[in-house]
Amino acid sequence: MEPVPAAEVDVDHECDVLVVGFGAAGAAAAYEAAAAGADVLVLERSSGPGGTSAQSGGELYLGGGTRVQKACGFDDTPDDMFAFLKAALGPHADEEKLRLYCDGSVEHFEWFRARGVPFKESLFDAPGWMPHTDDGLMWLGENAWPYNTIARPAPRGHRPETPMFAGGILMEKLIAAVAEAGAATHRDTYATNLVVDGDGRVAGVVARAFSERVAYRARRGVVLTSGGFVDDEEMLADHAPVLLGHDKVSDGTSDGSGIRMAAALGAATRRMATVEIALTANPAVVCRGMLVDGLGRRFINEDVYPGLFSHRAVQHQPGPYWAIIDEAGYDEIAEADMWGVHPKHAAETIAELEESLGLPSGSLEQTVETYNRYAEKGEDPYFHKDAKWLRPLKGPFAAIDPRDGFFGAGRHGAGTGAGGFTLGGLDTTVDGEVRDLSGEPIPGLYAAGRTASGIHGEGYVSGTSLGDGTFFGRRAGRAAAARLKGSG
Amino acid sequence: MEPVPAAEVDVDHECDVLVVGFGAAGAAAAYEAAAAGADVLVLERSSGPGGTSAQSGGELYLGGGTRVQKACGFDDTPDDMFAFLKAALGPHADEEKLRLYCDGSVEHFEWFRARGVPFKESLFDAPGWMPHTDDGLMWLGENAWPYNTIARPAPRGHRPETPMFAGGILMEKLIAAVAEAGAATHRDTYATNLVVDGDGRVAGVVARAFSERVAYRARRGVVLTSGGFVDDEEMLADHAPVLLGHDKVSDGTSDGSGIRMAAALGAATRRMATVEIALTANPAVVCRGMLVDGLGRRFINEDVYPGLFSHRAVQHQPGPYWAIIDEAGYDEIAEADMWGVHPKHAAETIAELEESLGLPSGSLEQTVETYNRYAEKGEDPYFHKDAKWLRPLKGPFAAIDPRDGFFGAGRHGAGTGAGGFTLGGLDTTVDGEVRDLSGEPIPGLYAAGRTASGIHGEGYVSGTSLGDGTFFGRRAGRAAAARLKGSG
Repeated sequence: MEPVPAAEVDVDHECDVLVVGFGAAGAAAAYEAAAAGADVLVLERSSGPGGTSAQSGGELYLGGGTRVQKACGFDDTPDDMFAFLKAALGPHADEEKLRLYCDGSVEHFEWFRARGVPFKESLFDAPGWMPHTDDGLMWLGENAWPYNTIARPAPRGHRPETPMFAGGILMEKLIAAVAEAGAATHRDTYATNLVVDGDGRVAGVVARAFSERVAYRARRGVVLTSGGFVDDEEMLADHAPVLLGHDKVSDGTSDGSGIRMAAALGAATRRMATVEIALTANPAVVCRGMLVDGLGRRFINEDVYPGLFSHRAVQHQPGPYWAIIDEAGYDEIAEADMWGVHPKHAAETIAELEESLGLPSGSLEQTVETYNRYAEKGEDPYFHKDAKWLRPLKGPFAAIDPRDGFFGAGRHGAGTGAGGFTLGGLDTTVDGEVRDLSGEPIPGLYAAGRTASGIHGEGYVSGTSLGDGTFFGRRAGRAAAARLKGSG
Repeated sequence: MEPVPAAEVDVDHECDVLVVGFGAAGAAAAYEAAAAGADVLVLERSSGPGGTSAQSGGELYLGGGTRVQKACGFDDTPDDMFAFLKAALGPHADEEKLRLYCDGSVEHFEWFRARGVPFKESLFDAPGWMPHTDDGLMWLGENAWPYNTIARPAPRGHRPETPMFAGGILMEKLIAAVAEAGAATHRDTYATNLVVDGDGRVAGVVARAFSERVAYRARRGVVLTSGGFVDDEEMLADHAPVLLGHDKVSDGTSDGSGIRMAAALGAATRRMATVEIALTANPAVVCRGMLVDGLGRRFINEDVYPGLFSHRAVQHQPGPYWAIIDEAGYDEIAEADMWGVHPKHAAETIAELEESLGLPSGSLEQTVETYNRYAEKGEDPYFHKDAKWLRPLKGPFAAIDPRDGFFGAGRHGAGTGAGGFTLGGLDTTVDGEVRDLSGEPIPGLYAAGRTASGIHGEGYVSGTSLGDGTFFGRRAGRAAAARLKGSG
């Protein structure tokens, strides 16, 4: 991964702006650079573009008054969006990036529309990781406590018009837009080293295409958008050990190579330990019942964004966890919302359920008794779950292990029931310039997406990875295209 | 902090081994290098040596069958020590370093004795951060659940013979030993840049002594032992934001300069987000009562090492927290153990206390009722506090804010009631060699103490920072001294 002097390289291909990695961030950078008139080339190590983005839910965290929000009757503002994200992504979100991201969000939404990404102007008004409908808008915890006390709630989960996984359609449109804008793509091409001019300017990359070594010269800049490092066990052990052993939310190519190539040239990294981590836990169940820890105790309002209860569970509580629901609640859940639900334990009484789950005697009884007593009054003084989800639970009951489901059966077979990805990466300016260890931009080097550290504090909300990856990817592409050829 | 080519430097002072920073790790490195026959020079930026180590409690986590342990009737083994630390420092402690540390612990203890550090052969057999006695041995959570089920419990907190803060006497002896071994010290000298030979070997440092620039040549190696980075707000924001706003356990010079000098030369860092963080909370109170969160719920066995309940509290629970105790328990505590205890709330009944603390009605009552019911039987099925601390609590009661105390009144006046320091740093081999980004040792460069990443996983136990700092400091000093002069 060591940088290679330009003088030692026989150039095979030339362009103005070279983008490394064709996920959402790479597509955004490539499009903008090409639209600005630059000669753009995108390298993708896989046999087709799309990356992890194409396999994702496709949520884009956008707001401030988008067309979809207005059509659904919500009067959102950039300030409310900022206040929500500052709280939900925090503590210690990057306020400079976050401010730009919120202020530019309506324009960013229109950019997706102009690229042909379809958004249905309708709201999926139920808890969920991913709607089973093709609705264009969903809640991502804005209407749950404490966030509903911090900012005026508006749903900001925007998603392309398709049920469940919408990342495919998102990337299909972006890939087509990049091609239309005139950018070329080299597939099966894995960048391994940055090429550096005598004056320290990044001037291209050396890559491997099957067994061939191929050298690229970039006259204006290189944009690294090759993903995070969840697939590299050594980097995880060194920087984000909390993800070791869990499943990987990745297409398998998140090996940190972009971060390592840049670091080998003296680039600074930032918050390498921050991660997203999720349990399978089905929010339709969790909302209607309760989520308890291995001592039968609730630990969060169950109507919060599921990424948040997952994060709290995995990082802050020893497992196991249980989703407890009663028959009335269970029967209420639509068939389509039932994925991943495998009740392992059923019982007529809570005392029987306690025994079956191996909980301390009286522990879950006490939790349910307290919950029910307040639910009668439509209150939850402990965790402030919204009154619409509060109802005394009556037998028969079932307990569902929220660790069962797609992560447990994931390709790594780790079976912890949790999976995640990395949020730390290269330290960048708001224009995607990669900073060196003294904080100065490295000439000619840009990064976006999970190769960079983005808007995130110590938390995560769905849609903010595709969101900040594309938003700052676009800025990086424009900044790279605007550099004078060969300037320092 | 950029490295300086040796050719550009007019050397003011020469030595074989140059040690940067005169805390415990620096003293250990300097002593061993000098004892091996090297000409050693120690740079200390303050007006006197000692660093943060001299202001600390002076605990050294040592075991495996030391003289003090045997005298106190404990038959410890390196394997039990390893099993405890692997659990208590984990997950993901560095097993290679940990194995060496445990296997070499008896020898390391004898090394301190031979340097004149006095250890009284007696056990302080009570919970506490620091004994108010001069006992040489204390428990650091080895006898608390779950650790007492993982390894045979033995106390391993070794401490110099003095009440409370014993870091001063520890450093006094080590500083004298370093001088006797023949090492020289330059005070008020702040190293700012590494000096590098043409072949990439570290050959010295450039430093600032008041307004003078002074250059040092090290014929064999440079050992960086200048502490962590808790005093650098920018580094905290970039790498360990969890400590932002909290008090700093530091002498004020933990600015990360050692880490930054090395990183500027291409050194790798490791686990920069890991930290130690502590609440003032008085263990004598906490043990005898209960520790509850802002919802009146216990979250840990209160007889565990106080660093562990602090860590759990600050990182895993939203504040406030309360130590709840009854009059009988309060009266039992010795005057000398009462530091930092300021009951803010007193009440005849738990219901009154609940109201006074603003807890949900019935929450603390339920916790106390459950606690008392099981305590009658000498049981704690929730958190497994040892039976000797279990006794039904009866009014009158008091609540103490565990955030009051020395941190709240600390020099930074942050008043969060918590303080800590950083555990992440340079990636080193077991001999203290600093690794570059591809994992290869950088010739001539060593690090130890909090400038390096040590044995720690995601947790911390008192005595392991002075412990691994001195243990691997000694190894680094020996390794540096053993290098052939000017070898690559």
